[in-house]
Amino acid sequence: MLTRLIYASEVTKPMTPDTLQDIVDKARKSNLNRQITGMLAFDSRYFLQLLEGGREAVNEVYNRIVADPRHQRVQILESVQVDERHFATWSMGFSAADAHGREIFLRYSSGDQFLPYKMTASSTLGLLRALALR
Amino acid sequence: MLTRLIYASEVTKPMTPDTLQDIVDKARKSNLNRQITGMLAFDSRYFLQLLEGGREAVNEVYNRIVADPRHQRVQILESVQVDERHFATWSMGFSAADAHGREIFLRYSSGDQFLPYKMTASSTLGLLRALALR
Amino acid sequence: MLTRLIYASEVTKPMTPDTLQDIVDKARKSNLNRQITGMLAFDSRYFLQLLEGGREAVNEVYNRIVADPRHQRVQILESVQVDERHFATWSMGFSAADAHGREIFLRYSSGDQFLPYKMTASSTLGLLRALALR
Amino acid sequence: MLTRLIYASEVTKPMTPDTLQDIVDKARKSNLNRQITGMLAFDSRYFLQLLEGGREAVNEVYNRIVADPRHQRVQILESVQVDERHFATWSMGFSAADAHGREIFLRYSSGDQFLPYKMTASSTLGLLRALALR
Amino acid sequence: MLTRLIYASEVTKPMTPDTLQDIVDKARKSNLNRQITGMLAFDSRYFLQLLEGGREAVNEVYNRIVADPRHQRVQILESVQVDERHFATWSMGFSAADAHGREIFLRYSSGDQFLPYKMTASSTLGLLRALALR
Amino acid sequence: MLTRLIYASEVTKPMTPDTLQDIVDKARKSNLNRQITGMLAFDSRYFLQLLEGGREAVNEVYNRIVADPRHQRVQILESVQVDERHFATWSMGFSAADAHGREIFLRYSSGDQFLPYKMTASSTLGLLRALALR
Amino acid sequence: MLTRLIYASEVTKPMTPDTLQDIVDKARKSNLNRQITGMLAFDSRYFLQLLEGGREAVNEVYNRIVADPRHQRVQILESVQVDERHFATWSMGFSAADAHGREIFLRYSSGDQFLPYKMTASSTLGLLRALALR
Amino acid sequence: MLTRLIYASEVTKPMTPDTLQDIVDKARKSNLNRQITGMLAFDSRYFLQLLEGGREAVNEVYNRIVADPRHQRVQILESVQVDERHFATWSMGFSAADAHGREIFLRYSSGDQFLPYKMTASSTLGLLRALALR
Amino acid sequence: MLTRLIYASEVTKPMTPDTLQDIVDKARKSNLNRQITGMLAFDSRYFLQLLEGGREAVNEVYNRIVADPRHQRVQILESVQVDERHFATWSMGFSAADAHGREIFLRYSSGDQFLPYKMTASSTLGLLRALALR
Amino acid sequence: MLTRLIYASEVTKPMTPDTLQDIVDKARKSNLNRQITGMLAFDSRYFLQLLEGGREAVNEVYNRIVADPRHQRVQILESVQVDERHFATWSMGFSAADAHGREIFLRYSSGDQFLPYKMTASSTLGLLRALALR
Repeated sequence: MLTRLIYASEVTKPMTPDTLQDIVDKARKSNLNRQITGMLAFDSRYFLQLLEGGREAVNEVYNRIVADPRHQRVQILESVQVDERHFATWSMGFSAADAHGREIFLRYSSGDQFLPYKMTASSTLGLLRALALR
Repeated sequence: MLTRLIYASEVTKPMTPDTLQDIVDKARKSNLNRQITGMLAFDSRYFLQLLEGGREAVNEVYNRIVADPRHQRVQILESVQVDERHFATWSMGFSAADAHGREIFLRYSSGDQFLPYKMTASSTLGLLRALALR
Repeated sequence: MLTRLIYASEVTKPMTPDTLQDIVDKARKSNLNRQITGMLAFDSRYFLQLLEGGREAVNEVYNRIVADPRHQRVQILESVQVDERHFATWSMGFSAADAHGREIFLRYSSGDQFLPYKMTASSTLGLLRALALR
Repeated sequence: MLTRLIYASEVTKPMTPDTLQDIVDKARKSNLNRQITGMLAFDSRYFLQLLEGGREAVNEVYNRIVADPRHQRVQILESVQVDERHFATWSMGFSAADAHGREIFLRYSSGDQFLPYKMTASSTLGLLRALALR
Repeated sequence: MLTRLIYASEVTKPMTPDTLQDIVDKARKSNLNRQITGMLAFDSRYFLQLLEGGREAVNEVYNRIVADPRHQRVQILESVQVDERHFATWSMGFSAADAHGREIFLRYSSGDQFLPYKMTASSTLGLLRALALR
Repeated sequence: MLTRLIYASEVTKPMTPDTLQDIVDKARKSNLNRQITGMLAFDSRYFLQLLEGGREAVNEVYNRIVADPRHQRVQILESVQVDERHFATWSMGFSAADAHGREIFLRYSSGDQFLPYKMTASSTLGLLRALALR
Repeated sequence: MLTRLIYASEVTKPMTPDTLQDIVDKARKSNLNRQITGMLAFDSRYFLQLLEGGREAVNEVYNRIVADPRHQRVQILESVQVDERHFATWSMGFSAADAHGREIFLRYSSGDQFLPYKMTASSTLGLLRALALR
Repeated sequence: MLTRLIYASEVTKPMTPDTLQDIVDKARKSNLNRQITGMLAFDSRYFLQLLEGGREAVNEVYNRIVADPRHQRVQILESVQVDERHFATWSMGFSAADAHGREIFLRYSSGDQFLPYKMTASSTLGLLRALALR
Repeated sequence: MLTRLIYASEVTKPMTPDTLQDIVDKARKSNLNRQITGMLAFDSRYFLQLLEGGREAVNEVYNRIVADPRHQRVQILESVQVDERHFATWSMGFSAADAHGREIFLRYSSGDQFLPYKMTASSTLGLLRALALR
Repeated sequence: MLTRLIYASEVTKPMTPDTLQDIVDKARKSNLNRQITGMLAFDSRYFLQLLEGGREAVNEVYNRIVADPRHQRVQILESVQVDERHFATWSMGFSAADAHGREIFLRYSSGDQFLPYKMTASSTLGLLRALALR
């Protein structure tokens, strides 16, 4: 069963570029192994990630994020069964949720900051698709 | 939660171009600070404004308009939760609701005058989007 | 409240070109004053007219037609509230419902004659929009 | 084709009980002849009437009301084709729209007065059905 | 046009029973004059009120609440046009949002406290209808 | 925002009645504190739990389950935003998923065993509601 | 394929009670043989019949009616494929469309006469079901 | 009332090209007189014809086909009221249902033969529109 | 994944009561083992069976029927994924499709004979549910 | 009745290119005779095939596959009635489900392997259409 899971999380402490690079690299490798695709957006504080793949694999990845000490306040925004992926060609798209995304953040949320906890699931899906097209 | 609020109001007394300019300038600045976008239409008598943004911010702006002595008969035409903005690229679009808009006024209301109190919320949304495209 | 009213009527006696011209001219002037738009189709016997505008104005115009001795069997095919006009740029479109319209009459009714009493309201709306595009 | 037409009108001058009785009696007789059913509500100033029957018959009755000097501001709130009547057993239900109806007026309109011009068509349908059940 | 408006607000300072009584009494009187119906829930800190009535009247009442120094953070949760009222028989239902309502608060919100700002408009409508039935 | 989350998990080793009792007791206490309601079904091997409450609270509880060494293969079957709870009166309903539930298991899944991983989210919702009514 | 066909026809000349009896008897026998069910309504002039059964059988019966010199103006009001019959227990219900049916005729058509040609298919279905329940 | 009727029939004996020509010519002439449009497909054995026009005219044509000794097993596949014609520009389109149509027959039916009795009404409508575009 | 499969088949030769008893007994035992539920209808010639259970189990049973020399013309009428069973309490309901079922056969098919090949899937579902309630 | 049937199966032993060729050739010939169209995908282990055509023919083909010793675990993913084919121009499309299809497999399933048993019917339909367009 193909599953889509969107979650938000917050870094536990400021992240060096190396740590971030490490997270993205590992996510890509781990996703590649597990046939997971999706999209990750990150500013210096929050993560918003959409994972799509087999239910078991998506949950394994998600459970590791829950256990990862670099993440806190890990929260699922939506998890549903789907028939087709949105990001099939991306082992894990990555978008630095920086100033260049402000107009997109604004379109889908209350402000031009990247505040995924305050968004509805359908707004985050719109946001991630818009970032992927950027 | 992203909110869209459309209201109409009437000037308490004829407005000099300076006063109008002051209102538009302050609206833009205030909206910019609060991450509010939208569209304002004004003829010499009536305001029609669509505000979209965080619910708290939109209501703060709205409540200041209610308290503003230059506005009277301030009335909400619609206020609902939304997942995406219509005017994400406009800190506050402004359209002088003058003779050039007559055909647009006519399309969405009973006459070619700008009479927002007599329109349904869905007609005002159509009107503001048409004015923005003008 | 924006209203759309479609009615059919029949001439009480054969109409000279001058009389018809008089009707159309007056309709345009009267509609212009009342901010009414729409479309009128006429062959030598039947009128089919769509009026859209404020409810009060549309009914004033309609009630004058009911009282006009040149019309008989005046019947409303549909009257509903709408959010947007179909013919916003026409003070009153006019189409001579003559032989050139046969294919259009045929598409929306039982034959290639112009017999508005025998049509459903949704067929007459299709017919008038097709005539306007001709 | 079965048609439902709802209209509102206003008396041209205060109406004696005899005149009102005359109107109701004639409406019932006229409707009986034309197989029209429906519901009439009247306070001392406004009429709200729903007519259902054949399109031709309903329009004949309506056109006489338009021409009747005791009515002014005659306006159609809705006229549509239907497959079944709501008031099939009433030649013409009548409800004095007096103080006893206040709670019903309030449920379907902006206040506890009988002000049919300010109601949507679907609110008037609800109002007339509630009055008929009283 | 019949309007339903739901708002939340917070008291500016602890309210004595007399002040609360004053607010409720004035709301009832004011609503009675303006033909407004609805439902008010209040715990010692937050107000949640549903107002239904004519758009102009509902907005007059709402604008006075915005200006009332005893209320702060006044925010509209929803304002839409409707065809029928939910609380037609209540000049203003009042429910002390106290411990007896906990199970109802829990059904419609994240916890058993009365926290209207954190609810969706459709949850608040469910909540107020459940309180009215209590 | 009110959230409903349904997950399945498997015990890491056979569970003594005391351990199970401990889990249920702690779940109830923890849920009570966090205003979470729901339903838990357990046979000697699998857990199926529906949690409903605030998104933050539901995710805190869920993340503790992910980290709990007595659970393995913890997988979310569905997580969505809702406007009203299904189990508002249950701090945490518990149903031993034993032989007495066979007919219910059979109605919503491929067999009369309790195998939540093999069920769709909508089947598990039906199953838990049926168990609660037993 | 199960088919429902509704047609109207007119007698070619006044029908004696014997002739009518003959028609009904033959219809019942013929329908019984062909496993056709339905409902027939007749006044002294018009027939309205609903036939439901296999497409081939229904059409054989219908084609005999077309060829029957006692019927003229035979017209199909509707013929569609269905999954279940409305009149499964009636070899052929019969209702004399006489004065006792007036209220039913009125509910579904323009007048209290039985004029099936002037009815929509969905009105005739309502009419026949109401006559069957009489 | 505009009606669409689709029927299938079978020739009673092999048809010479002259007889077929005669049928098509007469159909066109007859349809032209009656303002009927549509589409006819014929292989050497079966007819499939869609007639659209006034209900009375369509049924007159259909009843003549029922009575025509060159047709047997005449069966209606569908007859419904419509608001607009599909083939308004065709007095009667004709398509020899020969080998060139095999791919089209295959798309809408069980095989590449022209077997209209075995098709659903919606498949025949698709087939005739595809043949008309060929 | 819970699956519902409906098929029809025909006996290869007349079946003695013993053979039939053997089939039903084995079906029940086999279904019990595989957690399959459903309903079987049989007259002296045709079988109509609905199987619901796990996709793998339902297909194993179905494939054995395909291979069983006592069945011929085995055809699936419908096979779809479902969230809940219709016959959860029946290891395999059995209904002799004899004369007592005629009224039910008639309601869902072209005649009062049991001819499952000529029925739509939705008609067979209605038929089997009606037989189960008998 | 036009039917679409999608099934998955597994080879009983590794298949030589000749055996595969034999299967595809025979499928094409057999389908051509039976007017069946569709699409077959095969990697070295699993078959996924969509058959569309007459219900009887599709089931004959399917039943032969069930009986074919080279297939095991033959399971229907979906079988429904349709009005139009998806693959009308393909006697039997064939796609080697090899490494070139990985991105397509990924879009519609849990991984980039070809594992048809683990897919929903609607995902397999998407997959086969995407392979046909490749």
